[in-house]
Amino acid sequence: MKHDRVMHIAKKRGFLWSSFEIYSGVAGFVDYGPLGALLKNKITEKWRNYFIIREGFYEIESPTIMPEEVLKASGHVDHFADPMTECKKCLEVFRADHIITDATGEDVEGLPNEKLTKIISTNKITCPRCGGRFTKVWSYNLMFQTVIGVKGKKTGYMRPETAQGIFIPFKRLLRFFRGKLPFGVVQIGKAYRNEISPRQGVIRLREFTQAEAEIFVNPKNKNHESFSEAADEKLILYPAEDQMKNKEPINITIKKAISGGLVLSEMLIYQLFIAKKFLEDVGIPEDVIRFRQHLPTEMAHYAIDCWDVEINLDKFGWIEVIGIADRTDFDLKSHSEHSKEDLRVFIEFNSPKKVKKLVIKPDMKKFGPSFKGESPKIIKVLEKLEVSELVHSFETKKQFELELEGKKYTIPSDHVEFEEIEEIVRGEKVFPHVIEPSYGIDRIVYSVLLHSYMEDEERSYFKLKRDIAPVEVSVFPLVNKEDMVKIAVQIRDNLRKEGFLSEYDSSGTIGRRYARSDEIGVPFAVTVDHETLEENTVTLRNRDDSKQVRVPILELHNVLGDLISFKIDFKDIEN
Amino acid sequence: MKHDRVMHIAKKRGFLWSSFEIYSGVAGFVDYGPLGALLKNKITEKWRNYFIIREGFYEIESPTIMPEEVLKASGHVDHFADPMTECKKCLEVFRADHIITDATGEDVEGLPNEKLTKIISTNKITCPRCGGRFTKVWSYNLMFQTVIGVKGKKTGYMRPETAQGIFIPFKRLLRFFRGKLPFGVVQIGKAYRNEISPRQGVIRLREFTQAEAEIFVNPKNKNHESFSEAADEKLILYPAEDQMKNKEPINITIKKAISGGLVLSEMLIYQLFIAKKFLEDVGIPEDVIRFRQHLPTEMAHYAIDCWDVEINLDKFGWIEVIGIADRTDFDLKSHSEHSKEDLRVFIEFNSPKKVKKLVIKPDMKKFGPSFKGESPKIIKVLEKLEVSELVHSFETKKQFELELEGKKYTIPSDHVEFEEIEEIVRGEKVFPHVIEPSYGIDRIVYSVLLHSYMEDEERSYFKLKRDIAPVEVSVFPLVNKEDMVKIAVQIRDNLRKEGFLSEYDSSGTIGRRYARSDEIGVPFAVTVDHETLEENTVTLRNRDDSKQVRVPILELHNVLGDLISFKIDFKDIEN
Repeated sequence: MKHDRVMHIAKKRGFLWSSFEIYSGVAGFVDYGPLGALLKNKITEKWRNYFIIREGFYEIESPTIMPEEVLKASGHVDHFADPMTECKKCLEVFRADHIITDATGEDVEGLPNEKLTKIISTNKITCPRCGGRFTKVWSYNLMFQTVIGVKGKKTGYMRPETAQGIFIPFKRLLRFFRGKLPFGVVQIGKAYRNEISPRQGVIRLREFTQAEAEIFVNPKNKNHESFSEAADEKLILYPAEDQMKNKEPINITIKKAISGGLVLSEMLIYQLFIAKKFLEDVGIPEDVIRFRQHLPTEMAHYAIDCWDVEINLDKFGWIEVIGIADRTDFDLKSHSEHSKEDLRVFIEFNSPKKVKKLVIKPDMKKFGPSFKGESPKIIKVLEKLEVSELVHSFETKKQFELELEGKKYTIPSDHVEFEEIEEIVRGEKVFPHVIEPSYGIDRIVYSVLLHSYMEDEERSYFKLKRDIAPVEVSVFPLVNKEDMVKIAVQIRDNLRKEGFLSEYDSSGTIGRRYARSDEIGVPFAVTVDHETLEENTVTLRNRDDSKQVRVPILELHNVLGDLISFKIDFKDIEN
Repeated sequence: MKHDRVMHIAKKRGFLWSSFEIYSGVAGFVDYGPLGALLKNKITEKWRNYFIIREGFYEIESPTIMPEEVLKASGHVDHFADPMTECKKCLEVFRADHIITDATGEDVEGLPNEKLTKIISTNKITCPRCGGRFTKVWSYNLMFQTVIGVKGKKTGYMRPETAQGIFIPFKRLLRFFRGKLPFGVVQIGKAYRNEISPRQGVIRLREFTQAEAEIFVNPKNKNHESFSEAADEKLILYPAEDQMKNKEPINITIKKAISGGLVLSEMLIYQLFIAKKFLEDVGIPEDVIRFRQHLPTEMAHYAIDCWDVEINLDKFGWIEVIGIADRTDFDLKSHSEHSKEDLRVFIEFNSPKKVKKLVIKPDMKKFGPSFKGESPKIIKVLEKLEVSELVHSFETKKQFELELEGKKYTIPSDHVEFEEIEEIVRGEKVFPHVIEPSYGIDRIVYSVLLHSYMEDEERSYFKLKRDIAPVEVSVFPLVNKEDMVKIAVQIRDNLRKEGFLSEYDSSGTIGRRYARSDEIGVPFAVTVDHETLEENTVTLRNRDDSKQVRVPILELHNVLGDLISFKIDFKDIEN
């Protein structure tokens, strides 16, 4: 299987290693080796280029440890859980829904624990290891829990997503963006998920890197000002309805998808467009990318429309690498309630509105005799109440009861009259909605390796796009003679000073060196040969077709710079 | 105090925020706002440029959660602790050594818990809050603890340093570097320290970013091949001996520091040199940087020489921002013992050595009759033993006792003779030593803000080096006329496409906009004015002296590129 050959090279050459190997390893953790870390960093930098430089979003960085209040408000303490059951005989723990699916073939994701317990008992499902009977199903929270401070002072969790770190300082962010919607804020960093028994390598990690953008938009205007740029692009969409009817995904323009109501808003589909551009830009072929809408049963509690960007991954099939959701105002509203901070945004109307409004007019001639010196403070309270509440009480009970500083007052209905006035209102305070593209960087790195892996009779290599290849240029002396070695080392050093990641290699034959260099995807190789000594030129070899051209040493860094930044192609310099 | 004014702007403009503010905050955590994250990323990229591009080290990325075995071997489970005591009356918890120092003025860092308990009782030290008496001193481990997997399967901790993640895959790294010393591996990422009650803002965080390099060297050769580049640089050193004698720090060349034995090795002092270069390069003035050697009492259990790079920080005084240590072979040796993996490196001698060696010569005529068919396996075991052990036993007891597969054998001394042979040995296996520079990125970011903060009669601003300023160029229309606005927005967009972080601003007067732009340290401002409409030129303003020059729009990105990369200075383009 291609997966195995890719992982073999990835391990051997320093892309991806299982973590803690010398201590027998721990499932769900991965080390990025020297080449893997370079590749991951380059992919992340490209992501920043898309979202920060081009889209104009800003990045922030917030802690990975969060106090319980935050994750209580976000719903993670109560809902970020898997249904579990334990074998009473061998004490092994399983995911209840997986056990049921394996035994019956039915998809029971999202069903409550009581139902799962019942299905297990009525179907007489037993432990696949020892045949033992199962306990009741319980919820296992997937967050890593810890304690902040000494002696159990404060419960904390490793964040399950970077998003919450953006919602918390929303007020400060709003001020940074001068109170105007829409604006986008991104965060790139670790997120954690204490999986029960992860067994899919880099595809299901307990600690992984997310790159998320939270785009705060006016809930009444989810149009995108650059929609026209995206309108004619085609996407392979797989709407929920078609999945349920067992239909095939459709290939459709963005314009038609919006006019046909397949995707909720321009703001949302624009992120599908960006995702496709980004994936192609890091080297994922168009035909292995599709967009699958969440089924109603799998949609998160905070979302009203959600699309997974899936890549077809050999051994694993179609796998989500990016999730794009309309989270509505769920998070900001909930944090507002829990923290008592007003997280709404003042949105001006297109033009000020005249609004009719009922206000109270206390009859001072009656208040004076009834309440004397206490009248002003009672009136102050009445003015702050919802008028409708007063009206209702007067209509039904002919009076209104009030408790103030521990004392009770009864205000007869004849003490207050109402008056309708007109007010000019410039706008209103609303909770913004949030459009969220969430990128799983580790899965993207794996996808890039898998889909750039090439094999032919002569060699196997990673055909990485030249601007994300970990090492950019290899430098060899044709033979290990002192003068060639000296020049080659000097070229390597000079290229490094110019900022190119270049490596020198002199072991084995030149053929072996090309093969080693190709294997890890180095796009270009420079060889110092006999002509170099006389003409100050070197050969520059192209990884993809093994063709070579001669380039003067002095022009090398310019040529390489133009090649790596895609200003020119190799065929442009072929003689 | 300067600190307060810097933090005021840092908070207001989006550099640094206290985390979880809407939930009343949690001490020891910080958010990098939009400008803070950009600044931090640029400083980190510069660090990468020093260590990866220039020094030729490679970066790796390993998990932040680690299983207990790793941190048991590293000594953190047993030794990464603070001495604590609790007030029996108000139940408040304190650091025992701090309580003693506050009460007596004595430095008791590093003393065992029993001694601290005794000092508290003999000095009758009581709770500073309520006057209550203290409990015995106990050790409080500073790691955040968690559980990996379901139902308490495996204890894990948030890593206390990134270094351990580099030691664990050492065998794979050694193979990547083809078995040759020295080589350097770096890691940049979060590390955690569950401080009891952190109260110094960004200076003492519970979650912080480290950038560490582990340089694996031959223990018998700690010279640095580029030492001559560093030799004449001067450093302000504060050796341990001088601190103990209350002397002042000394200003000395690196060459003299080495020849005088002040710093243990070239490899170590070369890292002091790099640290100084790096700090100056991000804008820390030379005269607020010093290098303080650890006192014997404060040196970590794994180190034989350790220097703190300290910066003088206003309110906080001299603070460590980088630690540079010779960790010896402590970590690799310990992981080798705990994991049973051989983490040594084969180091070739300069020339092969003839080595005399004692080998055993079993006397088969005696073995045959004594042990019959079991002779071969007994001899095999004897051959694997340390010869000295056998010699010793024969000399003292005239025999050697052996247990093999549960059976005991006694070998009389006359059964074995010894022979000295000569062997050619090409090299030996040794544990490398590790030189470690450990950078505290958060403290460096704070130092950069503090020391770049400028005030004069007219304005206050961050005079950030132009290659680390978060926003690189501001673009303004001189007045808000449609044609100027249009061109200004277009220039902003084009600069972004060229990769410059540029911002457009049109609110308030041009003077207010310059002030806002200066305040956050934007090095250059472009203004579109009346001349622009006719001549296609704009004014380019220099933050530091407010001088302006006219530049053709078409040349703008080249000029800015050269300015920001320090290829030219502003005075080079003044007309």
